Amino acid sequence: MHNRIPLIYIAFFFIFFFLSPTLYGQQAVDREKDASIIQQIYQLSLKEGQCYDWLEHISLQIGHRLSGSLQAEKAVQYTSEVLESLELDSVWLQPCMVPAWKRGGPEQMVILDRNGNETHLTCTAIGNTIGTGSQGVLGDIIELKSLDAIDSLTRDQVEGKIVFYNGKMNPGIIHTFHAYGEAAGQRYWGPHRAAKLGAKAVIVRSLTQAIDDVPHTGTCFFDHEGMNVPAVAISTKDAEQLSSELSKREVTGRMYTECHFADSVMSANVIGEIRGSEFPEKIIVVGGHLDSWDLGHGSHDDGAGCVQSIEVLRMLQKIGYNPRHTIRCVLFMNEENGIKGALKYAKEAEASDQFHMAALESDAGGFTPRGFSFDAEESVFENYFNQVMEWEPLMEPYGIEFKKGGSGVDVGRLKKLKGLLIGYRPDAQRYFDYHHTAEDTIDKVNQRELEMGAASMTALVYLIDKYGLL
Amino acid sequence: MHNRIPLIYIAFFFIFFFLSPTLYGQQAVDREKDASIIQQIYQLSLKEGQCYDWLEHISLQIGHRLSGSLQAEKAVQYTSEVLESLELDSVWLQPCMVPAWKRGGPEQMVILDRNGNETHLTCTAIGNTIGTGSQGVLGDIIELKSLDAIDSLTRDQVEGKIVFYNGKMNPGIIHTFHAYGEAAGQRYWGPHRAAKLGAKAVIVRSLTQAIDDVPHTGTCFFDHEGMNVPAVAISTKDAEQLSSELSKREVTGRMYTECHFADSVMSANVIGEIRGSEFPEKIIVVGGHLDSWDLGHGSHDDGAGCVQSIEVLRMLQKIGYNPRHTIRCVLFMNEENGIKGALKYAKEAEASDQFHMAALESDAGGFTPRGFSFDAEESVFENYFNQVMEWEPLMEPYGIEFKKGGSGVDVGRLKKLKGLLIGYRPDAQRYFDYHHTAEDTIDKVNQRELEMGAASMTALVYLIDKYGLL
Repeated sequence: MHNRIPLIYIAFFFIFFFLSPTLYGQQAVDREKDASIIQQIYQLSLKEGQCYDWLEHISLQIGHRLSGSLQAEKAVQYTSEVLESLELDSVWLQPCMVPAWKRGGPEQMVILDRNGNETHLTCTAIGNTIGTGSQGVLGDIIELKSLDAIDSLTRDQVEGKIVFYNGKMNPGIIHTFHAYGEAAGQRYWGPHRAAKLGAKAVIVRSLTQAIDDVPHTGTCFFDHEGMNVPAVAISTKDAEQLSSELSKREVTGRMYTECHFADSVMSANVIGEIRGSEFPEKIIVVGGHLDSWDLGHGSHDDGAGCVQSIEVLRMLQKIGYNPRHTIRCVLFMNEENGIKGALKYAKEAEASDQFHMAALESDAGGFTPRGFSFDAEESVFENYFNQVMEWEPLMEPYGIEFKKGGSGVDVGRLKKLKGLLIGYRPDAQRYFDYHHTAEDTIDKVNQRELEMGAASMTALVYLIDKYGLL
Repeated sequence: MHNRIPLIYIAFFFIFFFLSPTLYGQQAVDREKDASIIQQIYQLSLKEGQCYDWLEHISLQIGHRLSGSLQAEKAVQYTSEVLESLELDSVWLQPCMVPAWKRGGPEQMVILDRNGNETHLTCTAIGNTIGTGSQGVLGDIIELKSLDAIDSLTRDQVEGKIVFYNGKMNPGIIHTFHAYGEAAGQRYWGPHRAAKLGAKAVIVRSLTQAIDDVPHTGTCFFDHEGMNVPAVAISTKDAEQLSSELSKREVTGRMYTECHFADSVMSANVIGEIRGSEFPEKIIVVGGHLDSWDLGHGSHDDGAGCVQSIEVLRMLQKIGYNPRHTIRCVLFMNEENGIKGALKYAKEAEASDQFHMAALESDAGGFTPRGFSFDAEESVFENYFNQVMEWEPLMEPYGIEFKKGGSGVDVGRLKKLKGLLIGYRPDAQRYFDYHHTAEDTIDKVNQRELEMGAASMTALVYLIDKYGLL
């Protein structure tokens, strides 16, 4: 036994002094080259970025683009032209049927005092809701502090009433998307659950941590069995005011909306790709969603993600990088009120013999980059995550952190394919000031912040492509 | 010799298995308590913050507040009233003489073509410059790509000319303050250096990485020997345009400004403090500067820093924290064009027998927090930095990083006192869209971002106070 110790020591010192410096040296060379390419990407983006110009066009020349609208088709047309202009290996449209929900004319939400005097609340109809009919809906308003509070009510208490969900998006939560996740159920499920108890209509407090005059739309569950009611979101200021009135007296409300579904129409995901030189059958997707709500310009949600995704391909070309894997930009249709584009894409991806090695989604606004969150099917996740964490130091100079977490509504559909799913995570403090509102306009997007995001996404795609994922 | 080895082992294992878990256990308890207090601070700031209301008042009721102006005195009055309302242990004004530079009437910068047709450039006079006189200044324009380029010119080449410094603030630099630092010399030294070679006037390209229509003022060196010329900054769009014209033909310019210095006036730093319960003679300063340029509202620069600094004291009170050291809020006067307030404060601090243990400045805008930078006199720096790095994990959940780096123009004056100097470092991608311009208005400040900054500063002051600095 005694004789063996020196041998172990020798082996140890050999490894320590000879082998690891060699490994270290090799790694250092790559790090240096990677750091230099990543720096080049950021410089290019900030000095000669194109994505802001594209976003200006989408915002000001096309405007908001709800699925099934003329503008949505214009956005398909415009972005496919932009992709064509890059002279990629392939650009195509992937057809998909989408619902065509229509807001109709302007909505009205009025509360009445005992003398019949009217106070108009700032409101916007919630997506996928039905209209009130030409007479509108009149009813007493009952307030609930959360979605689940409706479980404690009987049919007698709800029938014929207008249910007011006044759950707050908690301002004390630092990660605004977590606060949104906590509160969004009242908008998504609220109308249907109130309908099941016989409510006439639903009012929802807008989903923002700010107290302001801006109403926020968004989707809700549409029940094909018919358990639906008209529903509007009111601004947080008006929600506070209405709640204060209700604490003092009974309040009657009158709602008027013209919402309805027109026939579904054929639309498309817009796709462009650079074919991989070594592994063309392995795909790295980068994407956002092309549709938006029918308010504002949809500049942050998700014009930003679309133009950043196109920019990833353009910048890889510009730096003269020849990808080993296929890099594919996918602009999904109908993320907001049906996810039909993502479902179609995922279905065809499943049927294909290509492997979706990674899919990155930018759908959290065009703000300063803070990081990426990574997700994958459980059996492969840790292996992927350990690999990407090797690259994190390369992104730190740009304020980027890698974390475990969700990817996005569209690329999330690819989970069962066992590739790596990634969400781009910009600073999110301002996002819910604009999200799903008339305030989501191009002037709210800062060009540098948008370009830094595009550069961050390009750098990550470069690293995934260069090193692959095992 | 041989007998000693087991003893060393025993000692080692004793330390490893018994002592360090105890230390670890102790530390863990404190971490938990600290984490809970820091969470309480952020919650309070985001749910019941006051600083945005104060900033609204300063921005909309007072407006911009250049040293020596009536508004600057109103700001002194208002902020001392706010501090008084907090019922601190002491609130006082520290008098200081400040220069009273006046812009006079509106400026004009015109370029003339061969036929005498005029093109007006978007401009703003640079602070501390002299006026052109009632006739204005007429001269041929020569372009320089940087401040130092003037060293290669002779007096003959410059005399009687209007010198146009067209150095770019490099958009490829991620840290916008670094890019500013690189380019700001042409504004600060440019007029004086051109004057020494006989130039009639100076035009400076605005200091921003954006290409837009917004001219940026700022201070320049004023030579008491008389080597000064009138100078204006033009927007980056106009700078590009003028440069393009100059590449094609000779361009004559006409400048008109009414800038002048009125007599210096007595103003003041505004100070309020909570006296330390254990070490009242050890001071922790938190501050910003009360004066601003005479454009916009001075909301980011530096209304934000002032209201955040007041908020630090209010929040420590609100959570019921009794500081061990004296926590002092200092709102410095005249940071923009003289630093007279900071010089006066530093002079009195040096003469005092109190110790300025730490001084934190917020003067980089009211944006989402990214971190703090730490500085100190060389002999004490590493010791301090090692101490604060122990606390960094407590701030990570809020996106805060600790780095070595500068503190601020005002607290920087305290360096020789050998305390710790700290700069608050928010996200800075948008800062130079607004800095020193008419665009620096309250609507550019996001309430959550401002409040997150105030919370971050409060949390750091809490940690410094609780643990002290050795």
